[in-house]
Amino acid sequence: MTLGSSNGAVADAAPLSAQESDPRVMGWMEGFPPPKDKIITQPDSVYFSFPKLRWSVCHLREFLPTEEISRGLGAPVPLAYPPPYEFGDLRDAIDALTFTPLGAHAPMSWEQSLYANYTDGVLILHKGRVIYERYFGCLQPDGKHAAMSMTKSLTGLLAEILVVEGKLDDAAPVSAIVPEVRDSAFGSATVRQVMDMTTGLRYSEDYADPNADIWTYSAAASPLPKPAGYAGPDGYWEYLQQVKPEGRHGDAFHYRTVNSDMLGWIISRVSGKSVTALASERLWRPMGAEQDAYMTVDGKGTPYAGGGLSAGLRDLGRLGLLMLNEGVIDGKRLFPAEVVKKIRAGGDPAKFGESYPALVGGRYSSMWWLYPGDEGVIAARGVHGQTIYVDPSAEMVLVRFASFPKAQNPLIDPTSLPAFRAVSQYLKSR
Amino acid sequence: MTLGSSNGAVADAAPLSAQESDPRVMGWMEGFPPPKDKIITQPDSVYFSFPKLRWSVCHLREFLPTEEISRGLGAPVPLAYPPPYEFGDLRDAIDALTFTPLGAHAPMSWEQSLYANYTDGVLILHKGRVIYERYFGCLQPDGKHAAMSMTKSLTGLLAEILVVEGKLDDAAPVSAIVPEVRDSAFGSATVRQVMDMTTGLRYSEDYADPNADIWTYSAAASPLPKPAGYAGPDGYWEYLQQVKPEGRHGDAFHYRTVNSDMLGWIISRVSGKSVTALASERLWRPMGAEQDAYMTVDGKGTPYAGGGLSAGLRDLGRLGLLMLNEGVIDGKRLFPAEVVKKIRAGGDPAKFGESYPALVGGRYSSMWWLYPGDEGVIAARGVHGQTIYVDPSAEMVLVRFASFPKAQNPLIDPTSLPAFRAVSQYLKSR
Repeated sequence: MTLGSSNGAVADAAPLSAQESDPRVMGWMEGFPPPKDKIITQPDSVYFSFPKLRWSVCHLREFLPTEEISRGLGAPVPLAYPPPYEFGDLRDAIDALTFTPLGAHAPMSWEQSLYANYTDGVLILHKGRVIYERYFGCLQPDGKHAAMSMTKSLTGLLAEILVVEGKLDDAAPVSAIVPEVRDSAFGSATVRQVMDMTTGLRYSEDYADPNADIWTYSAAASPLPKPAGYAGPDGYWEYLQQVKPEGRHGDAFHYRTVNSDMLGWIISRVSGKSVTALASERLWRPMGAEQDAYMTVDGKGTPYAGGGLSAGLRDLGRLGLLMLNEGVIDGKRLFPAEVVKKIRAGGDPAKFGESYPALVGGRYSSMWWLYPGDEGVIAARGVHGQTIYVDPSAEMVLVRFASFPKAQNPLIDPTSLPAFRAVSQYLKSR
Repeated sequence: MTLGSSNGAVADAAPLSAQESDPRVMGWMEGFPPPKDKIITQPDSVYFSFPKLRWSVCHLREFLPTEEISRGLGAPVPLAYPPPYEFGDLRDAIDALTFTPLGAHAPMSWEQSLYANYTDGVLILHKGRVIYERYFGCLQPDGKHAAMSMTKSLTGLLAEILVVEGKLDDAAPVSAIVPEVRDSAFGSATVRQVMDMTTGLRYSEDYADPNADIWTYSAAASPLPKPAGYAGPDGYWEYLQQVKPEGRHGDAFHYRTVNSDMLGWIISRVSGKSVTALASERLWRPMGAEQDAYMTVDGKGTPYAGGGLSAGLRDLGRLGLLMLNEGVIDGKRLFPAEVVKKIRAGGDPAKFGESYPALVGGRYSSMWWLYPGDEGVIAARGVHGQTIYVDPSAEMVLVRFASFPKAQNPLIDPTSLPAFRAVSQYLKSR
């Protein structure tokens, strides 16, 4: 493989394996200075194309302005672990688990799946204890990783907390809360339709299509100075004001990032706080986080509520525990149980559609994914393989950071979802 | 005062007082979104001009790419405090101290000086305990503030640690360590001349002169994409390779930021670590820091060793304690006492010159300021009023963050240095 072939434009041809594309193997950004062909720089079409993205997912703040989600100044509350000998046995047992990837015939081991999925970090909590934890590629226990669209679930959780506390009326039209979007497609949607992404918007989010609206949106959102002659919207919130309608609100689930940014605006407007400040106050500080997290911001300092979060693996484990235990962590209640119960009860499988082959029959509720099946799995998902996977049937929380070469999660679901179920089965059988 | 008069270009006319220019009074960045005339954005000529800079000094990461200086994942080691009633009495006593500003006749109280100096945060440690701590403007205990050129002292301390440990030969020519600068003015300088800023370089750092080299340097250093047709050096280290000589190395102290970036390159080259990684490993992690710090980076990810640090007030107090106690904090030795002894013994008052009226007879050594006088004060200084002031004669460490309207510290020294001495005298008299 030559370096030329690592260019995003030709990445299709022969993607490097997880081991080959390990940032330490590639030598990205090593040396003072690194060799010219090992330096990763702007623009995002460079730094966020495979295999460079395998380094960049741990280093977004080095490319972009960001806002902190503070953990505060106190001591973190360490996660619980089994004794080391037991931890080692559990790791061996889980690594050896096998499953059949969706649409495949040959079995795959859990450990093989970690490489198939370009895993950067994986953490499994069972009955409140960390029973499995491994790091790969650019990630370390004290590092942060891009959460991508898992950010949406953070935004959705904060919104649902405000709903349950009576501070946000989810039946209200968005225009009653944010009059600035009165003339956009959002104006006539309800807050709940935004939370569940059943708005009728003209918005294409096909990451593989270079003309998709998502890229226009990115131009509005870029914190870099706008190019000369740029006449488009400046910042996330100006973009939202000119989104056009398409279809009817409430008819169907359409996965569109702009809903999350609309929700970010809504919760900031009703709480008087930025999404970062809310996340710090309601979650990062009280949950005993061991690292600050951060969110990228647009040129006006607005955090990217649809995808800007970077955080530590264990801290997203804490977030998963809060979902599993309905607001309680370390014996402390952070928000009413009703918040998670409402999220679980929401969404509509009839509206969910078939865009996600592995999830047909599931639901999308308050920006969380409710998986089909009896286990009652609730998940956060982000492109390139990010997930928080909460399986109450096994009292399990699984967090995975990854840098899968392609963005689309349906490509990584086949080697992921059955692997997660294999772990869940194993834990239930112990 | 109209908002128009707060523009940097006319700030001379009638600078707002500390109270008037308090970011909360100005309403910068308040609201979702803030009103148009309250939004602070790029470029730095906007966000870093008074009075906007009073907000921006606490929010640099929201404008610029940054690299973390990690505190690690453990519990911070809290600073020691006297009992609250004693703390309150101490605060009253210190607030009431009076002194005569340099060149003035009328006395000023310590508390008045806080406003005269546009103080954002001030921390005083005496015999290892925090006896005074106040926050103003944009700063909070859990916030971070731009350290500006105090960054240089961090870089110098790390370099001196490597010298004492035998990993860096301070007598070696720079070209022996970083051959890339062989043809620049740095090539023929010794490491020690760089550390003490006695290099002979053509470099103007007059912040008031729009044609000064510092601004060209800023263009090289900017992480934003270069303007079309830009043909200058890209990044800190490319800039260093084309610095021209002027005068003779070793003859005189000339305060030039590029020396610090050269030193950053040197210590990265010999240690194999970025300045941020070194600062984390040698200082932030072992000193029990309560916050991560960060440094801004250029377009190639090189931390700005000459001015890029932002940190918490108390964490710079910890750094001051390490200087006071020659490498020991909380009973733990982080580096040999020889490091501070060497810094204290270095520099040459004959070379120091008279550019700093309040400091004539002082020295500059390993990027620390050694003040004239019997107290043996050693200090870090940064534009707009940043200082770590270590007075061993009073077992005192004082850290001040500020956002004085003008950059130049000689303008703020008259209401600062005699104020610091008044506190020192008071503490010695107790």
